[in-house]
Amino acid sequence: MNDNRTVKSHDLLPEPTLRRLPWYLAYVTMLKSEGVEYVSSTRIADELCVDASQIAKDLSFINIKGKTRIGYEVSSLKDALRRFLGFCDRHNAVMVGVGSLGAALMQDSGLQRYGLNIVAGIDTDPRLEGRRIADIPVFAPDRLADLVQSLAITIGIVAVPVESAQTVADSLVAAGVKALWNFTPTRIRVPQEVVITNTSIYSHLAVMYNRLGSQKT
Amino acid sequence: MNDNRTVKSHDLLPEPTLRRLPWYLAYVTMLKSEGVEYVSSTRIADELCVDASQIAKDLSFINIKGKTRIGYEVSSLKDALRRFLGFCDRHNAVMVGVGSLGAALMQDSGLQRYGLNIVAGIDTDPRLEGRRIADIPVFAPDRLADLVQSLAITIGIVAVPVESAQTVADSLVAAGVKALWNFTPTRIRVPQEVVITNTSIYSHLAVMYNRLGSQKT
Repeated sequence: MNDNRTVKSHDLLPEPTLRRLPWYLAYVTMLKSEGVEYVSSTRIADELCVDASQIAKDLSFINIKGKTRIGYEVSSLKDALRRFLGFCDRHNAVMVGVGSLGAALMQDSGLQRYGLNIVAGIDTDPRLEGRRIADIPVFAPDRLADLVQSLAITIGIVAVPVESAQTVADSLVAAGVKALWNFTPTRIRVPQEVVITNTSIYSHLAVMYNRLGSQKT
Repeated sequence: MNDNRTVKSHDLLPEPTLRRLPWYLAYVTMLKSEGVEYVSSTRIADELCVDASQIAKDLSFINIKGKTRIGYEVSSLKDALRRFLGFCDRHNAVMVGVGSLGAALMQDSGLQRYGLNIVAGIDTDPRLEGRRIADIPVFAPDRLADLVQSLAITIGIVAVPVESAQTVADSLVAAGVKALWNFTPTRIRVPQEVVITNTSIYSHLAVMYNRLGSQKT
């Protein structure tokens, strides 16, 4: 655990707050690159269409308070948000399923910038075994438990076909990961102590198509 | 507009329903591959941890009713869901920002299976101009308006750095796209008639890290 973290970071934050914090981070990162030193919650509010009082409340969770009339100091707000969001720590992860989406994510250097360190890939395809994707080695499934232990992997990313999703999740949990990041469009069951985050990009497509269709009438 | 769609598909469905429908689709697709012919809402409920009455309600939106004692016919439920969710139509899209994440998404054949047809990439980097990623040609930004018109592009995917996100969104809207799919971790403002879907995978990471941290205490 990073000593720089405030005690607050261990609290279970409301998910809407957690989803807004990266917006604030993105905005102050941009302001910093433009040389801006201070920003008011009103300005953040205008830019991001979030209520100013909501912003003050969200930021109070991470023990950041603005100064009257001056607002927030951009540089320290940026650092505090990055630390709080866990983007400064290194979280070792294994990608299970080095198919189209899995391989694509392994090549996204953005994940690394946000603290996700994919240290190994796993695939059932023997042709992938021993290969490297974005310099990350790919292994056969029987290496999973061993890799999770020896590489101190805490996060398992599930990017396999739907029919294997639950089996893969079960073996990741058995191997000892603490969190699963599910990219399949199905629901995965995990024990209560395991964190699960669903990023079903295909479900987002369905929402978008429906909204598009309804606007044509 | 696809004639096979029911009138209902134009209604604005509740987003939670829209996010559950792909789970049902994933599950019945798997059942079909296993040769299962009928499935009850109770069985879907058990598998996906969704209330059985909720499932019946969700499926009634797409005019699908189960038969007493027998349940839903797997094959027609699968087809109805795919059609309803827009996965059978072709939606032409342009990827703006062919960096790490943008290029990765262009290589994900899953998107194509779910009806998203990325027909062009746009990037400010002159070294990318004229190149092909997964056989999709990459163009300079000044070609955007022309491409949207000539290739009948309705969806603009935003995968640029945060500081360019709003500018890119504005030019996509000006070029005539009907929907934006925002992969940047920032908020984008669009006119009310334009559909916006946010898939901020880095924000999901923040939620996961926070949940992980809180479980260590």
